[in-house]
Amino acid sequence: MESQDDFALSCPIQIQRYPQVLLAHGGGGKLTHQLIERMFAPAFSNPLLGARHDGATFSVNGSRLAFTTDSYVVRPLFFPGGDIGSLAVNGTVNDLAMCGARPLYLSAGFILEEGLPMETLWRVTQSMRRAAAEANVEIVTGDTKVVDKGKGDGVFINTAGVGVIEHGLSISPASVRRGDTILLSGDIGRHGIAIMAAREGLSFECEITSDCAPLAGLVSALIEAGIEIHCLRDLTRGGLASALVEIAEVARVNIKIDEIAIPVREDVRGACEILGFDPLYLANEGRFVAFVASPDAERALSIMSSHPFGGGASIIGDVASASSAIVTLKSRIGGARIVDMLTGEQLPRIC
Amino acid sequence: MESQDDFALSCPIQIQRYPQVLLAHGGGGKLTHQLIERMFAPAFSNPLLGARHDGATFSVNGSRLAFTTDSYVVRPLFFPGGDIGSLAVNGTVNDLAMCGARPLYLSAGFILEEGLPMETLWRVTQSMRRAAAEANVEIVTGDTKVVDKGKGDGVFINTAGVGVIEHGLSISPASVRRGDTILLSGDIGRHGIAIMAAREGLSFECEITSDCAPLAGLVSALIEAGIEIHCLRDLTRGGLASALVEIAEVARVNIKIDEIAIPVREDVRGACEILGFDPLYLANEGRFVAFVASPDAERALSIMSSHPFGGGASIIGDVASASSAIVTLKSRIGGARIVDMLTGEQLPRIC
Repeated sequence: MESQDDFALSCPIQIQRYPQVLLAHGGGGKLTHQLIERMFAPAFSNPLLGARHDGATFSVNGSRLAFTTDSYVVRPLFFPGGDIGSLAVNGTVNDLAMCGARPLYLSAGFILEEGLPMETLWRVTQSMRRAAAEANVEIVTGDTKVVDKGKGDGVFINTAGVGVIEHGLSISPASVRRGDTILLSGDIGRHGIAIMAAREGLSFECEITSDCAPLAGLVSALIEAGIEIHCLRDLTRGGLASALVEIAEVARVNIKIDEIAIPVREDVRGACEILGFDPLYLANEGRFVAFVASPDAERALSIMSSHPFGGGASIIGDVASASSAIVTLKSRIGGARIVDMLTGEQLPRIC
Repeated sequence: MESQDDFALSCPIQIQRYPQVLLAHGGGGKLTHQLIERMFAPAFSNPLLGARHDGATFSVNGSRLAFTTDSYVVRPLFFPGGDIGSLAVNGTVNDLAMCGARPLYLSAGFILEEGLPMETLWRVTQSMRRAAAEANVEIVTGDTKVVDKGKGDGVFINTAGVGVIEHGLSISPASVRRGDTILLSGDIGRHGIAIMAAREGLSFECEITSDCAPLAGLVSALIEAGIEIHCLRDLTRGGLASALVEIAEVARVNIKIDEIAIPVREDVRGACEILGFDPLYLANEGRFVAFVASPDAERALSIMSSHPFGGGASIIGDVASASSAIVTLKSRIGGARIVDMLTGEQLPRIC
């Protein structure tokens, strides 16, 4: 077969080791990374895609723009603290914010399964409306497809977004420098645990709600205050650990973080212990890390801390020598370990 | 239930008549239209979305941009003349072209079903690469999600696109004027029949291939020649008939077309007769109509005809009185009938 030959000739060996797509290819960890690096990046090769950023940035007639996309397949559709609609708006708003852009316009592409209750679609749509209003973006174009019953799962949503970059900073993993201070905008792990609890019918003493939130306002406050930001990254699939490892690899730096400085709520930590999860790998939908020039770190922390979506912010580490691309964690009991990307699949369809 | 109340209070009666999503809600005809008008447009209410165009157009720092999205769920993934990859690139390129924009950048969001052969994804990716190169656009950002086996159907692709508008024309359904001449860029119905044949294992004397093609080059040639274009619309789901009815409704005009002037290949016409389809409602992926100021019509026809993707172009009608929003077809035998939008679902998952 010709196509078989094409594949054998061209498909990189690392991809060939997996003759079929696994859930972990969508988990935001090593296999997702490999698929991007070996399949998509070579095919769609261009400098913008190569930046391994949360979105692409480019200039049109002298205006700097950001452009990003994400599909949402979260299960269940509604969970404590959010739903697929608010997630689809905030996720793309946040990816634009991580590019240092002010989000302007979103698209919305729906893939509906035949038989989806119209009421469900209505609730999702109303949630998107509220989230867009809160994030100050407009949903300006869209598309609806319907697939046969049993060929989808209720509703999948894709959002893409366009934003404008109104400052002179170059915010990108490649801009991370030795000496940078790393801030985390709040406690981690709530989205992952909220989804897990909703899916498995677990209950805790207090309900653990997703941290799902729009981050563009907080980022904008940092930029307007003149903070020298080098890189921003929201902590979605793969969690804090995978985000930091990817940045370390792109910037070729050694990232050192301190476990004791990473806020994890007691109930989230407890749930992690029971369920066997590591909070470092849990998904978040309203948290990000900021790499800033170290003289600006305390000021950045103060701006974050006084913002509704940065209340639990902390300084979690810094960027050390530029010789090795690793992430090192100083543990609670004082030991040090190397942090790797998420391997395999922790919680499929988290977003 | 609170959500039930929300729904009952707010969900418009026309939507409530359908308690569940039907395949026809994604067919590009009346029900799709109703979903947009009654569910999405009120929720995401803004002037850009209200334009009922193939995409949104807006200005950023004085540059006019276009932004559009489409999800692709075509079945089968590969068909004569194309595949889901080329469709996903050309479809979004064409929506930008219909806004009068020069396509610049695309995003690609994949929703993969667990167990998808990696070779299939490779072939789709390579097809997207070729289509993007042919259309002179770059795929600059993307996303991959994986859903459990049985909760998807191989691969769904969303593409969104950003383009720049480099002329002073206002190309939009609202710009259509009495006296405009309507051009069709080539024969219709091939995509629909090609998909149908591939799906049902039908064979014809000569293979009928999809017309899937990028249209931005042809549109650009018309604009550069100074043709006074008022509206452009590609003829995807719902076909020529649904596209014209929608334009007539937005512009509040009477569109008159002449059946004998509408090119349909003999084999497509034969297949339609056997299968009981009307070519006016069949989907196309490389055909569009142009509403132009009538003094420019012959020149526009000549430009189209000399372009590889406009070889079979013809003048199919004009815009008459502005008092009634209808489409009238003069039939081959001289009678006249009113053309309506596609009702129900002709061929699900055509794109």
